[in-house]
Amino acid sequence: MSLITPDNNFLHNAIGLILLKKIFKIALCQMKVTENQEENVARAVAMVDQAGAKLPGKGHHQKADLVVLPEMFNCPYQTEKFPEYAQEQNKSPTLQAVSRAAKDAEVYLIAGSIPERDKNHVYNTSFIFNPAGQLIGRHRKMHLFDIEVTGRIHFKESETLTAGDEVTVVDTDWGKVGVAICYDIRFPELSRLMALQGAQLLVFPGAFNMTTGPAHWKALSRVRAVDNQVYVASCSPARDEKTSYVAYGHSLVADPWGDILAEAGTGEEIVLADIDFSQVEKVRQELPLLKNSRHDLYHIKYEK
Amino acid sequence: MSLITPDNNFLHNAIGLILLKKIFKIALCQMKVTENQEENVARAVAMVDQAGAKLPGKGHHQKADLVVLPEMFNCPYQTEKFPEYAQEQNKSPTLQAVSRAAKDAEVYLIAGSIPERDKNHVYNTSFIFNPAGQLIGRHRKMHLFDIEVTGRIHFKESETLTAGDEVTVVDTDWGKVGVAICYDIRFPELSRLMALQGAQLLVFPGAFNMTTGPAHWKALSRVRAVDNQVYVASCSPARDEKTSYVAYGHSLVADPWGDILAEAGTGEEIVLADIDFSQVEKVRQELPLLKNSRHDLYHIKYEK
Repeated sequence: MSLITPDNNFLHNAIGLILLKKIFKIALCQMKVTENQEENVARAVAMVDQAGAKLPGKGHHQKADLVVLPEMFNCPYQTEKFPEYAQEQNKSPTLQAVSRAAKDAEVYLIAGSIPERDKNHVYNTSFIFNPAGQLIGRHRKMHLFDIEVTGRIHFKESETLTAGDEVTVVDTDWGKVGVAICYDIRFPELSRLMALQGAQLLVFPGAFNMTTGPAHWKALSRVRAVDNQVYVASCSPARDEKTSYVAYGHSLVADPWGDILAEAGTGEEIVLADIDFSQVEKVRQELPLLKNSRHDLYHIKYEK
Repeated sequence: MSLITPDNNFLHNAIGLILLKKIFKIALCQMKVTENQEENVARAVAMVDQAGAKLPGKGHHQKADLVVLPEMFNCPYQTEKFPEYAQEQNKSPTLQAVSRAAKDAEVYLIAGSIPERDKNHVYNTSFIFNPAGQLIGRHRKMHLFDIEVTGRIHFKESETLTAGDEVTVVDTDWGKVGVAICYDIRFPELSRLMALQGAQLLVFPGAFNMTTGPAHWKALSRVRAVDNQVYVASCSPARDEKTSYVAYGHSLVADPWGDILAEAGTGEEIVLADIDFSQVEKVRQELPLLKNSRHDLYHIKYEK
């Protein structure tokens, strides 16, 4: 008797569907950001559309399922501009536009970050939408970027921004995804906390500069992936030498072994990569770092 | 009136001496390890001598002040050999020999590691000596290396070894130095704990293999340096394709910005680099990571 009965076929398809649910395509939109807020938002929407589109002649394998925008995608990366460009969560034309874009393209959207006003505070906030365009999470940058490299770069976010205090992990169709912003990647505790909360992909909208970018951007992304045995996706604005703060570019995706799956150059482009959460399990089985951690001796305590 | 008075000169020299005390030379002995324990120890002693020697015709700038040996420098890196080659701390011919070598060469010596027997347990232990040959610290590998990469590598230290449970930081003439062993580098919590205890240099005797070495050895060393803004020195045995466990080599020193100061090839050699602890302060001033950490929200709790 053949094993291929209608019931077995059903079972096979069901298992196939479950397995399939671990595989998805991520798109990082390395967009150019200007001083013109409306233009920035229009560009962000266009890139989400492009990444998520099921175009005629464009194979299904080219359609992104999860789209990421860069840090401060609707505002120049200048501390004094953040309060001026800031919008409130419930009255934000930017968020309305990108929420609609997520719904139109039927994608999860990690909308980089925008300056968010809440009462007397301005935060550097990433809003996260599901394919129905509903808000499913929000990360306020937890570590503010204050740097002073003699003669090379001066930048002090804390002059105008307030820091967030939440670890952010959201549910998706494929599993949990952690979101943090730029400078947050430098603090291994936060990545560990996200991984311990079950995140299998960490997404960092970020704008490293021409000093820290070449020095640390790729190495930090790779080692956060290696340490936590998760995927890491870091999404930068395109480089624009004419702005006061020049972003490094090189948006990239690292897999749980630390290999780079895809990396942008410096210009405006969409980086695509295939994520397969079963790889997380495979790497953790081969090299059981989380199991071998000495949580009997140390652990990261988080409390607000 | 000239400011250069005898008193000012004296003050200037005194300050100079204090500043000088932050600068020293490190030597990593990437030695070949064989099955012959006595031969291994003789080779280790010869390399410590060579690194620390004030040879005629060899400038003072070539004399190392702190010398490092690789993991399991007196024993083949095979789990079943560890109990056979193990020695007790107080009756160890290996430790007697390397203590004498440290004294003869007038160097601090981080004596890689050896299999150490203590009652019914065998540890993978690094013993640390001052230039008088006195034992000033000991690190027992805290994370045992159990790996199973399908078809590529199988290794299980926990079959014969017991794990240590102490964070190890020792005092030197220049400041504090942390010591951990190989797989310990994969756990960011331990590096962070050493840095928080004041270590400005983390030393990892280690034997990554031909799978994990090319993938992670350099990136992990660099990012532990970058995250904690400390120097990192990782010291491997030389590569020997004929052994069952093939070490990667590439002993290296990374500075607090993550730049590689010196890196070995795969053969037997001594890697020299200049360490300047004032660079730790400089990098921390420019990019105040430890200050910007959100220890109000999270911290690593360690207790035995």
